[in-house]
Amino acid sequence: MELPVDADRLRADIEANAAFGAIEFDDPEKRGRTNRTGSEANRRARDRLVERLEDAGLSVRVDAVGNIVGEWVSAGADPDAAPVACGSHLDSVPEGGIFDGPLGVYAALESVRAMQDAGVEPVRPVVVVCFTEEEGATYGTGLLGSSVAIGETSVEEALAFENDDGETLGTALDRIGYRGDATVDPSGWEGFYELHIEQDTTLEDAGADVGVVTTITGITHGEATIVGEANHAGATAMDERTDALAAASQFVLDVESAATTVVESDSATAVGTVGSIEVSPGASNVVPGRVEASLDVRDVTVESMETIVDAARDSLDRLERDRGVDATFVQPASVDPVPMNEHLRAIAHEAATDATATATDLHSGAAHDAMRVARVTDASLLFAPSRDGISHNPREWTDWDDCAVATQVLSGGLARAAGVDAKE
Amino acid sequence: MELPVDADRLRADIEANAAFGAIEFDDPEKRGRTNRTGSEANRRARDRLVERLEDAGLSVRVDAVGNIVGEWVSAGADPDAAPVACGSHLDSVPEGGIFDGPLGVYAALESVRAMQDAGVEPVRPVVVVCFTEEEGATYGTGLLGSSVAIGETSVEEALAFENDDGETLGTALDRIGYRGDATVDPSGWEGFYELHIEQDTTLEDAGADVGVVTTITGITHGEATIVGEANHAGATAMDERTDALAAASQFVLDVESAATTVVESDSATAVGTVGSIEVSPGASNVVPGRVEASLDVRDVTVESMETIVDAARDSLDRLERDRGVDATFVQPASVDPVPMNEHLRAIAHEAATDATATATDLHSGAAHDAMRVARVTDASLLFAPSRDGISHNPREWTDWDDCAVATQVLSGGLARAAGVDAKE
Repeated sequence: MELPVDADRLRADIEANAAFGAIEFDDPEKRGRTNRTGSEANRRARDRLVERLEDAGLSVRVDAVGNIVGEWVSAGADPDAAPVACGSHLDSVPEGGIFDGPLGVYAALESVRAMQDAGVEPVRPVVVVCFTEEEGATYGTGLLGSSVAIGETSVEEALAFENDDGETLGTALDRIGYRGDATVDPSGWEGFYELHIEQDTTLEDAGADVGVVTTITGITHGEATIVGEANHAGATAMDERTDALAAASQFVLDVESAATTVVESDSATAVGTVGSIEVSPGASNVVPGRVEASLDVRDVTVESMETIVDAARDSLDRLERDRGVDATFVQPASVDPVPMNEHLRAIAHEAATDATATATDLHSGAAHDAMRVARVTDASLLFAPSRDGISHNPREWTDWDDCAVATQVLSGGLARAAGVDAKE
Repeated sequence: MELPVDADRLRADIEANAAFGAIEFDDPEKRGRTNRTGSEANRRARDRLVERLEDAGLSVRVDAVGNIVGEWVSAGADPDAAPVACGSHLDSVPEGGIFDGPLGVYAALESVRAMQDAGVEPVRPVVVVCFTEEEGATYGTGLLGSSVAIGETSVEEALAFENDDGETLGTALDRIGYRGDATVDPSGWEGFYELHIEQDTTLEDAGADVGVVTTITGITHGEATIVGEANHAGATAMDERTDALAAASQFVLDVESAATTVVESDSATAVGTVGSIEVSPGASNVVPGRVEASLDVRDVTVESMETIVDAARDSLDRLERDRGVDATFVQPASVDPVPMNEHLRAIAHEAATDATATATDLHSGAAHDAMRVARVTDASLLFAPSRDGISHNPREWTDWDDCAVATQVLSGGLARAAGVDAKE
């Protein structure tokens, strides 16, 4: 099966999308964007996607939380058959890269266009999907659109989430024109493929073209609140202080140390991160009175994740005892590791062989919408190489050739899943 | 000399001032306010002060950076004699207390009213002063109004400082109506008294009514910038990270440890604080790429301050070596310790004896406007007790009786300095 993926067309799409929320850098190694859900940049990125889907003859619908789907029913398809879906997201973290998300959305569209150009007519409809707020950077909860689509989070709850400006997701989607009335229901899909950049160096180190994910690691999110006593930085003697930031600093180092210990002893894939810390009052001449710190723990086994979370709790207990702070810890979300579908993985490997691309199995340390979709239907996650493994950063980079080869494999897997004979 | 300080009138002034930017708490132990320079709350606090100064017959002027002075020339005064000044500030840190600053301003006014009520006619004019942006919490530089008044900082430079919203001090003062055209020149003052809450527990522990400051500690401000590599918190293995926040956490603990070591070995009065830390990008699912941390070091000797700053620099050097971050350190401001004037101290002690108040000598770990004024004329700083030494916090508290007794001592010192015979 020859599926003529157009590398230039794919690149043009990703570059055009990168303009929305683009950040200018003097350094040619950096290309960044801030595309927050509900922002003007986000509206423009969505508008362009809708245009491109319609240009390719897909019928577009938007659901209540702004998830966008475009459906292609080929001339040879049964319009009532369960469709095969493919996609990712367009939102980014603040100062993120240009590939994380958009590659998967536009590679899905390019896969459809490649089938159209080749005259391939799959028997199932093919759906291109763009999920809302995958990053969770703006409304605080990642994988939000896919969580609503599979029914894990209610529409009402999602629309009530607020950004830092106090605007709800519902209001923001109304404002940008993406609070739709269609339903997106992955449980009605025959299967789902997502292509994403790897965000680590496994493929780069192995010299492989594409990664086929075996398991997506579980994630635990935590929030630690450490309360000391705000006081004058000049007039409060060292032995009279209950400094919340000094305590939080010990917490950050304890989390790092616990994750490193697990990596060295039990599970090389474990990670633990404190990515956000808010100090109150946060003035240079005031001893910090209160700190809120995030915790993000991930691994391929529940046990190793729990070891790190337990160590974080122990750290807070010690800080209460040794430093006199009050510390609380809440764990609002915890998700077990999710294995990917074996059949979709197998046909992705076949597609790689067809495309004379080298494919390798690996785990995903990052959460992706495929993790949610896997709860209700077969799901598979493919990776393209990512230079130095850097992402969520303007230095994030995937060579355009690597984008095209990975899309070639994606389109082959998608065509097979949608009912095209590989010998065609 | 009987100077009938009116405790209720003083309390009413401080309580009325506390309403501007007041923060509501359920806890009766907490009374806070946020009175940022240039805010609406700040405008209202200034307006009320001007009204109260004029009510007491003082002629009010405002200088180019919003410093407010009210001058009282008694019937027996030589209007051309160098005046004696007294005052403090009305701005606060975010979520600060109600006494830090306003006590000194309204105690100065109350001292004038007490002289008026007693028919005391000092031979020198008496000036009540309110300096702009003492805290530095809004425009980044503390003691700003007094620094401009003594000519250390130019008007142009001060007016160009920006707050977090990017508004300059000049624009803010225009907006609230406090960019005046008068000149406030402390070098023309015969002397200056400032009454302030202690912000430590020396007076409380000693059961003393008032503190007479011998030396104001020096201050060094520093800014450390630590740059690592922002990256995906799930996909970046522990041994592939350059986590700027983990490095900054070590820096915070190193500063704390260095200050504690100095306290235990050389100088019990030394303090070192990291009060503010900004993490970028600051998302829970991103390994921190950049941290900016403040440093505040104070003591009564230059040598012990330098020991702590050197340790902070050494910490950053180690972090570059051990963790691969890039670290820079700038030291935008450093002020040597400042001794207070002996004559003004002596007459403050006499005034305490007159008022049957117990006075004790002590140092000030906090900077105050008196520190700047001392560069151009005689200056003296008095302290009122401060419960548990807490300040820059809604739990800051000085009993109303303690406010009145300290004001009684202040008025006695001020009257003597302005040329009233103590035997009158």
